[in-house]
Amino acid sequence: MLHGVIMAGGSGERFWPLSRKATPKQMLKIVGRETMIEQTAARLKPLIDNSRIWVVTTASQAPALKKLLPGIPAAHILQEPVGRNTAPCIALAAYAIARQDPEAVMVILPADHIISPKGEFQKTLRAGARAAKETGGLVTIGVAPTFPATGYGYIRRGKKIGKFASADFYRVARFIEKPDRARARKLVKSPLYTWNSGIFIWSFAAIAAALEEHLPEIARDLKPLLSLPLRGRGDFLRRVYPGLPSVSIDYGIMEKHREVLVTTAGFNWDDVGSWAALDKYLPADRAGNRGRGEVVVYDSADCLGFSDGPLVGLIGVSDLVVVATEDAVLVCPREKAQDVKKLVEKLRDNPRYKKLL
Amino acid sequence: MLHGVIMAGGSGERFWPLSRKATPKQMLKIVGRETMIEQTAARLKPLIDNSRIWVVTTASQAPALKKLLPGIPAAHILQEPVGRNTAPCIALAAYAIARQDPEAVMVILPADHIISPKGEFQKTLRAGARAAKETGGLVTIGVAPTFPATGYGYIRRGKKIGKFASADFYRVARFIEKPDRARARKLVKSPLYTWNSGIFIWSFAAIAAALEEHLPEIARDLKPLLSLPLRGRGDFLRRVYPGLPSVSIDYGIMEKHREVLVTTAGFNWDDVGSWAALDKYLPADRAGNRGRGEVVVYDSADCLGFSDGPLVGLIGVSDLVVVATEDAVLVCPREKAQDVKKLVEKLRDNPRYKKLL
Repeated sequence: MLHGVIMAGGSGERFWPLSRKATPKQMLKIVGRETMIEQTAARLKPLIDNSRIWVVTTASQAPALKKLLPGIPAAHILQEPVGRNTAPCIALAAYAIARQDPEAVMVILPADHIISPKGEFQKTLRAGARAAKETGGLVTIGVAPTFPATGYGYIRRGKKIGKFASADFYRVARFIEKPDRARARKLVKSPLYTWNSGIFIWSFAAIAAALEEHLPEIARDLKPLLSLPLRGRGDFLRRVYPGLPSVSIDYGIMEKHREVLVTTAGFNWDDVGSWAALDKYLPADRAGNRGRGEVVVYDSADCLGFSDGPLVGLIGVSDLVVVATEDAVLVCPREKAQDVKKLVEKLRDNPRYKKLL
Repeated sequence: MLHGVIMAGGSGERFWPLSRKATPKQMLKIVGRETMIEQTAARLKPLIDNSRIWVVTTASQAPALKKLLPGIPAAHILQEPVGRNTAPCIALAAYAIARQDPEAVMVILPADHIISPKGEFQKTLRAGARAAKETGGLVTIGVAPTFPATGYGYIRRGKKIGKFASADFYRVARFIEKPDRARARKLVKSPLYTWNSGIFIWSFAAIAAALEEHLPEIARDLKPLLSLPLRGRGDFLRRVYPGLPSVSIDYGIMEKHREVLVTTAGFNWDDVGSWAALDKYLPADRAGNRGRGEVVVYDSADCLGFSDGPLVGLIGVSDLVVVATEDAVLVCPREKAQDVKKLVEKLRDNPRYKKLL
């Protein structure tokens, strides 16, 4: 059966002050009327029903997520006692799923991306699942670049492997870390490169074998999940999880494994990496100002104003991002929106600001 | 006896969103630990004791002012039912004071200016009171300009009248409205011009005669205060005040009267007309950022951050004024701080924002 694994960690930095540690981006209604994780779960249906959706999250976010996703079985909300990057997170999900369904094929996907249209998305997943099953490889979904992004990793494709459900699949020749502007401009011009969407598809057998090969400690420490009674899972994870290495699935497995495939997504994809990335999802006034909530502008242009309560009044400014909540306000130029993280780091240094993170 | 009249109207526009209609600038602790009106009252002592201080304000501000100034007799908090600019306000105070003390000499002064040092201030007031008493003229306090201000009115002095308490007094040759930059530059170079501080000193006899001559309706309508029982004052004002013309003391009397004198203040004076005017009263960090409340900056310079609650986070900005309260946030460049009024006007157009004014 096909299962969906939604990775819902997130530290709530990039959309601070609206996002917080306990309510990171995937729990916000940044675009549309539902939170991003609700949209992510809804986007899997009917291909993957609630009974086969799994969520990996932190203990602090789990209660809120259960409320947001009442249709997903409580036992499918997997709680990491501490964050250990994506490889342990994915291994945790893989063993938990295989305990129920050893023949499982699983789609791994982040909780906070914007993807459309749903039909094309499901078509790509279906093809990926077929390829994963038939080849026994690890499938990655590439996205055809639309601009020379420096914030994404790229995938260079190699030899064509075959066609599954009318989609072409290639062996991955190389993963490329976030490039600089000049290199990104080159990559975008070649049909060989796609963005790494962070969406993966594989059978349990394939990922289990890859874990044993490349990350044997993680495999060894988490494999007991395959037979552990459910009620012992929390204690077990609290005991072993903190000792796991913190490693990403890309670095820990994808870049090392031989059988990695890539196909090009038939859908539009955006990881909405910062406040400035919201532009295309919000209507603008005549002066190019966009936003949500009570924002009043005078003599201002091309600003992004967001409020979940206080009125935001802008006078004589342009290209600013201004975000207001009841207890914190952010002001930064549009092109510095990536630096929100740096401010959050600074706040982290002062215990007085703990409740604002 | 010498009385002090503190004009405490104010619409709370220029320091929005910290100032509101019900709590305008004089009720804020913008500089120092006390509100501006508390500082204004304290600055008059010991020259003028609480028992001879009067405050003219609006009905909506009166309760809060009584709490701030518990030493001032409740009957001295004069309430205007509606705002009618400074001439009716001053006439109201004059008749109310003369009812108790027909020989009164009174200092009229705004509630929200920054003045120091106190000793020099009182010396100037003492000299002005002497001049007002001995000449029967209307005395204005001029301030030697320190920069070519375009936000103040100017006074050109004429013939010297005499020396009172070692200060020189001149006849006023002309009042000059707020000049443009070029003219201000010229005025500042001449010793003949001073800024109009809005501080006046006169005897009741002198202002009463001037009112009769230049603003006879105001004199006629408010003169009954001279003999009215105190408990009837509220009803009386609610009946006659709305019908009074709205006119400033400068335009209605000072610019027309013959016997107007000016002396140059021995103190430093600042009307703190906008957020941007606060700079010199606040310490700066190494990058020139100033403020009050929780303000955290990253890669930002020369900003003014004010908060009475929410944390303000600034990233990569300069020369901005950012003011945050629980229900409203202002962002504007330093040089546009005067435009706060325009934003407030815009808010006034929308009934939804009534509670924010």
